[in-house]
Amino acid sequence: MSSGAFLNHELIGKTDGRRGLATPALVLDLKAFERNLSAMQEHCSRVGFKLRPHAKTHKSVSIARRQLQAGAIGLCCAKLGEAEALAEGGIDSLLVTSPVVASQGFSRIAKLNAKLKDFMIVADSAHCVEGYAKAGAQSGKKLKVLVDVDVGLHRTGILPGEPALGLAKRIAASPHLEFVGLQGYAGAVQHIEEFEERRKQSLAALKQLGDTRDMIAGAGIPCPIVSGGGTGTFNIDAEARVFTELQAGSYIFMDKQYGEVKIANAAPLPFETSLFVQTTVISANMPGLATTDAGFKAFATDAGPPALHAGAPEGASYFYFGDEQGGIMGAAGMKPGDVVLCTAPHCDPTVNLHDAYHVVDGDKLVDIWAIEARGRSA
Amino acid sequence: MSSGAFLNHELIGKTDGRRGLATPALVLDLKAFERNLSAMQEHCSRVGFKLRPHAKTHKSVSIARRQLQAGAIGLCCAKLGEAEALAEGGIDSLLVTSPVVASQGFSRIAKLNAKLKDFMIVADSAHCVEGYAKAGAQSGKKLKVLVDVDVGLHRTGILPGEPALGLAKRIAASPHLEFVGLQGYAGAVQHIEEFEERRKQSLAALKQLGDTRDMIAGAGIPCPIVSGGGTGTFNIDAEARVFTELQAGSYIFMDKQYGEVKIANAAPLPFETSLFVQTTVISANMPGLATTDAGFKAFATDAGPPALHAGAPEGASYFYFGDEQGGIMGAAGMKPGDVVLCTAPHCDPTVNLHDAYHVVDGDKLVDIWAIEARGRSA
Repeated sequence: MSSGAFLNHELIGKTDGRRGLATPALVLDLKAFERNLSAMQEHCSRVGFKLRPHAKTHKSVSIARRQLQAGAIGLCCAKLGEAEALAEGGIDSLLVTSPVVASQGFSRIAKLNAKLKDFMIVADSAHCVEGYAKAGAQSGKKLKVLVDVDVGLHRTGILPGEPALGLAKRIAASPHLEFVGLQGYAGAVQHIEEFEERRKQSLAALKQLGDTRDMIAGAGIPCPIVSGGGTGTFNIDAEARVFTELQAGSYIFMDKQYGEVKIANAAPLPFETSLFVQTTVISANMPGLATTDAGFKAFATDAGPPALHAGAPEGASYFYFGDEQGGIMGAAGMKPGDVVLCTAPHCDPTVNLHDAYHVVDGDKLVDIWAIEARGRSA
Repeated sequence: MSSGAFLNHELIGKTDGRRGLATPALVLDLKAFERNLSAMQEHCSRVGFKLRPHAKTHKSVSIARRQLQAGAIGLCCAKLGEAEALAEGGIDSLLVTSPVVASQGFSRIAKLNAKLKDFMIVADSAHCVEGYAKAGAQSGKKLKVLVDVDVGLHRTGILPGEPALGLAKRIAASPHLEFVGLQGYAGAVQHIEEFEERRKQSLAALKQLGDTRDMIAGAGIPCPIVSGGGTGTFNIDAEARVFTELQAGSYIFMDKQYGEVKIANAAPLPFETSLFVQTTVISANMPGLATTDAGFKAFATDAGPPALHAGAPEGASYFYFGDEQGGIMGAAGMKPGDVVLCTAPHCDPTVNLHDAYHVVDGDKLVDIWAIEARGRSA
């Protein structure tokens, strides 16, 4: 997926290509990324989970392909635009994890359903289901729908128990739809740093989901899929035996937030940081202060400042210095042209600011992978 | 600049096109935008200022063209990538307002200098000047350089007085460079909400810049350009008579931050909000709470949450609900499909998340303008 359209394409194959990148630039450590791919797939295989990784993290056809090659059953997408970008790139098994409500959205669903080998979407209201039925009719084949269940986050989803059962019945009754199961995402639980507390809250959320699945199956409606979970609960979700498949996303990259999440015995998650933002010092005229070329347009700021990974003195720290620049305090000895690697505070929205991954093996620039679904949030 | 590549192109010309947009979507109120264009140009003409608007705000060839048609002398760009995108769109007078230090950057400068009618860049170190001299030689014509002076922000710039004079001499002595003046940006001053305090701090910063200009001119080096200032100091900068040209950016859009800035007698700035993010309610299963389709990937979050402009009940407020979604509290009566307009908390990095402006006159979708320099931060 190399492309001549990218700024740094002439550096592909060069042994010191990384150091010559125009910055700010997203850098992906290929070996660490591949170890993360394997570690999660092996975990899922071992505990009898299917893996349907979430593409909202990477938004990239190249990465989706590698996840499928490693054993994933398909990809999740947050939005229709993301699904369309992956479908254009040949990814043919997609689950859209947010409800869609607008009429232009229903037409786009019809096209995706007609085109893809396996397309599914979630519903959490009668409004969605009505539109999806039209989309199914328009696409000429039944549209597969999961009921999105609110297990405590209150962001999307219908309440567990009777309300979810009612919606499942409505879907099952439509000649244009096929009810295939449930989705539940305990998003607020993922980043609880302490393991036992995260485990307790996760299992409580999952119990509601399991009870709802049993209620629906008890009403004679098959419920083969229960989809959800994430990187922060990858091992707790296995214990609960409610999910049939895991929607983890961030495990491939890790970020500063997930770096602080612990599993049993206070160990870190068994995934490595593979994603960095490379930035260059452009000014250093004040003692102890350096200014870099990466600010609000290079990092998503919702989770605080990035961590300095390499290239800055021990004890130095990064602060946001506006739209275009970052500052490094404790920058003694740094000078214009110095290259710094930062760990993204929050990977998904940071990736969404960039057009490409610069894939490296050490300092060698191995390839550039497009982020085809960047900005496809509609 | 309409384009068939955009999701909503089939709505162009429709009288209710705005309401049918796939969301989240950037919406630009054409009439308000045009009034802002005129108001700033008339102010500059009245006080005898040139206007060189900053393209880091809009990153769009369509908007740059309109600023030039209204009377601007050229555009500012924050980064080379931004300048390259505007140059590709035919904008031929550009000032790059950040120092560039990397060797790949010097080659790109050479190409821009060779191609454009009028290209200028700032320097704040001997390191820059050495590289720029190579770029000038490579481009076959003298490269115009301004010295970037640190008037208190300590982000970029060399100290005023002797250090700035020394750098000006170094530039003037190069056969490949032409020293054309100074740049100074008192960025921290722009958003001081109270007028007299902002005026006091601005004038102090500008005095240092004026003294430095006099020192350089006194040394026999002509210093025709003094460039800087912004939307928040547009009228204070006029009073100081130091700048020859104004680099304002945000006046065309305004945002929540600048909406809180006051001028003399506590009046708001004489510009209107013209830029909005349109979002749609996708879920409303909890009393008083609605979930929309715009989160961290639709808004830059460095300046807090957006304001609700239209479509939500009086007293309702928006909160970030993760990467893909927003929440509305006080959402009584809202339902899936409801369309909401939000005012961006901070326009520049929010624009940088989107690929196009949906230009509206009331509810009519008049056009779609590409954001060609989106993401061109390197």
